[in-house]
Amino acid sequence: MANETKKLVEDITPMGVDFAQWYTDIVRKAELSDYSCVKGCMVIQPAGYAIWENIQHELDRRFKATGVENCSMPIFIPESLLQKEKDHVEGFAPEVAWVTQGGLEPLTERLCVRPTSETLFCDYYSRAIHSHRDLPKLYNQWCSVVRWEKTTRPFLRSREFLWQEGHTAHATAEEARERTELMLNLYADFCEEVLAIPVVRGQKTEKEQFAGAIATYTIEALMHDGKALQSGTSHNFGDGFARAFGIQYSDKNNQLQYVHQTSWGVSTRIIGAIIMVHGDDDGLKLPPHIAPTQVIIIPVQQKKEGVLEKAAELKSTLLEKGFRVKVDACDKSPGWKFADCEMRGIPLRVEIGPRDIENNQAVLVRRDTREKITVSLDELDVKVGELLEDIQKNMYAMAKQHLDSHTFSATSIDEMEKILDEKTGFVKAMWCGCRECEDAIKEKTGATSRCMPFAQEQISEVCVNCGKPAKKMVYWGRAY
Amino acid sequence: MANETKKLVEDITPMGVDFAQWYTDIVRKAELSDYSCVKGCMVIQPAGYAIWENIQHELDRRFKATGVENCSMPIFIPESLLQKEKDHVEGFAPEVAWVTQGGLEPLTERLCVRPTSETLFCDYYSRAIHSHRDLPKLYNQWCSVVRWEKTTRPFLRSREFLWQEGHTAHATAEEARERTELMLNLYADFCEEVLAIPVVRGQKTEKEQFAGAIATYTIEALMHDGKALQSGTSHNFGDGFARAFGIQYSDKNNQLQYVHQTSWGVSTRIIGAIIMVHGDDDGLKLPPHIAPTQVIIIPVQQKKEGVLEKAAELKSTLLEKGFRVKVDACDKSPGWKFADCEMRGIPLRVEIGPRDIENNQAVLVRRDTREKITVSLDELDVKVGELLEDIQKNMYAMAKQHLDSHTFSATSIDEMEKILDEKTGFVKAMWCGCRECEDAIKEKTGATSRCMPFAQEQISEVCVNCGKPAKKMVYWGRAY
Repeated sequence: MANETKKLVEDITPMGVDFAQWYTDIVRKAELSDYSCVKGCMVIQPAGYAIWENIQHELDRRFKATGVENCSMPIFIPESLLQKEKDHVEGFAPEVAWVTQGGLEPLTERLCVRPTSETLFCDYYSRAIHSHRDLPKLYNQWCSVVRWEKTTRPFLRSREFLWQEGHTAHATAEEARERTELMLNLYADFCEEVLAIPVVRGQKTEKEQFAGAIATYTIEALMHDGKALQSGTSHNFGDGFARAFGIQYSDKNNQLQYVHQTSWGVSTRIIGAIIMVHGDDDGLKLPPHIAPTQVIIIPVQQKKEGVLEKAAELKSTLLEKGFRVKVDACDKSPGWKFADCEMRGIPLRVEIGPRDIENNQAVLVRRDTREKITVSLDELDVKVGELLEDIQKNMYAMAKQHLDSHTFSATSIDEMEKILDEKTGFVKAMWCGCRECEDAIKEKTGATSRCMPFAQEQISEVCVNCGKPAKKMVYWGRAY
Repeated sequence: MANETKKLVEDITPMGVDFAQWYTDIVRKAELSDYSCVKGCMVIQPAGYAIWENIQHELDRRFKATGVENCSMPIFIPESLLQKEKDHVEGFAPEVAWVTQGGLEPLTERLCVRPTSETLFCDYYSRAIHSHRDLPKLYNQWCSVVRWEKTTRPFLRSREFLWQEGHTAHATAEEARERTELMLNLYADFCEEVLAIPVVRGQKTEKEQFAGAIATYTIEALMHDGKALQSGTSHNFGDGFARAFGIQYSDKNNQLQYVHQTSWGVSTRIIGAIIMVHGDDDGLKLPPHIAPTQVIIIPVQQKKEGVLEKAAELKSTLLEKGFRVKVDACDKSPGWKFADCEMRGIPLRVEIGPRDIENNQAVLVRRDTREKITVSLDELDVKVGELLEDIQKNMYAMAKQHLDSHTFSATSIDEMEKILDEKTGFVKAMWCGCRECEDAIKEKTGATSRCMPFAQEQISEVCVNCGKPAKKMVYWGRAY
């Protein structure tokens, strides 16, 4: 038994040894995702997909509370449509997959598999929007998109990934700006409240903003290895797409006006963030609010009379109270099961054996702290509820502590580089606003501008690179 | 006001005049689906997508209750993988879309956009299944698929459509057969209980079965125009795919065995069935169990003090009780709104005006029967609940009555043809089991074999075409 347990944990490379391998080991051992026979495309296995379903459920609920409606746009974009907005096509054309044959015949016009659907929504809106009464349009779709990436990693970067993309059209520039902010804050709150991932909210520099946008807002999270992960974006398009696609409405004075648009998305990439923010050397660690299984009941000496029955009874009690619960009654040893459920990241386990039953108690073990708590069966459901909330809070606090202790300020490029090499994390530094300095900082330190945070601070008066007067404080970081 | 109302209804071509145009008018006027700039691909608008979301929600719940887990497979299939199972590739290769370029480079092997995912699941199972402990695998995915159809119609036949596809692997042939039946019955119960659509359950003839299956079960529904619509299928593959893909497990005696597989699917096509089974000349008619909006509250003389407030109050009351409710407070006339909500198929409307408020009552109008019921506001929620259930039952009864009164028996080809021409509907007739007779019947009458119903009857002793001894009673019909 001891050997068996040891073996399972040994299968995961410690993060300190090789972070990338640690990540891959967790993805594979926890059965979140498998490689497929299509290069760069992944199979999302049930354990991974169930996380995505919970993300969908919770985000969808929050979207709809702001008036968003779901719809479905075609999977293909004709080449001529993709080309209608100049910046947009430049950004995406080099990385799309092209369909050139349908059935037995070659197509007269190539179709790309959507890398994002701005052009399709714009085409639809140009036909569907006529009057100010038709506005706003607050549409979203849950789908997959394709981008022909060269280097791929499960969840983080793949040729196909799942996401949602919201696309809205508004009567005024102000409304569009408000919607862009609203959705960015919705994403940030979701990350913090549900995924227990603290994020930095801010605006992308012009270099990093979305192809065709006038402003891109982003939430940036910090992984265990000190690298940043862009976890959600919200774009304000102004009336650029509207002009390219001719999306006009007649206002109350019967004057034709262009609409103002936004788009915003979160993808399966965020599952990578969950892994790399919370996981440890024993495996995955899922926040209770998103965990597909919140509680696992492990019968000890399960062949003894009454043990499996009691486990099933406890499961029913907890299910009735609305918890997501499973019993692991397979024929492996308890020790193996303990290690297995820790590796799979289940927040709380309940151990129940003959002696526990005799004493009307169970042993609860937290995944986050490993703390063992003996609890009377009479108050099991209450205790489980309290512990899950406490685990959720503690996981957020631990992640916040990591973020705070890995966020530094620098006033010189050398200092930035030293921090990025030795301490890892975000570096806050001032920037003059010019593209040359942004490029130079990247070249010298390997860090990109993650965002100009909404919460600005004055680190110094001058740009960290050129020494000229600074315009913005920027979060810099090496990133996924 | 009278004119306005009239205009809205006039926009829908009566079914008696042109059934196909009636269908298209409803799809467009009720804003279920719009054409897109990609030939044969549709935009599913929020009103249509909300129906699909309710279908997804209810089917998914039923799937999971039988142990099914969701996952996600790649969108692409390499040509070599598609070719592994001989019958399967013959069935699908002529109608797939081919990706030949990724990014800026041509692909070394073409990829097709999945028309269905048997090959992808098999490829995955061949790597994931080793032991009898790994079985059964009960996976499903919700996604879109692409088939390069020549003639397309919204929901009924499009180049891309949304669906779910379940793919299971079992240790024994018996288990696979049971799962095939279980899912077919699940679909049938769903149609009858939720969509209020009665169906005929049966098995497809060999000619009509799925490419690669040893048996295909189907549910067949009858549309208003007397044509059949295949509304869901469940396939038993035996071990054919397992042999082609090498999917083996070691059994309890450590012997290698092939798995036995099934697949089953329901698509957005079923939205076409809802339209064509329930709709009438005034528009769509949605069964309460699936209607995104079950109750619409229409304020009368809404500018009078207290009317909009009362409407909002009633909405809250009904929402709290779990009904899906909206208030139509736009600036059109009540008459226009009445016609509009009828056209959109909302099962129940609540009219509330100053005099109603004075009398502490509201007028309820059923979409199915047009009956008006005056109800005290004190018992509004109870009455709404009762009426919605009654509408659901009545809609099923009306559809069942249509199915029963359009199901005939025939003992000769001439009789079959006469029924199909003059009465329209299903014709039950005996069949010897040979392909030649099946082809001849189609050629002579335009009807295909819809299914060999599980509930067999003896119409006569001989085949309706060749006069040789009959093996099966078959439902024949002209079909979508």
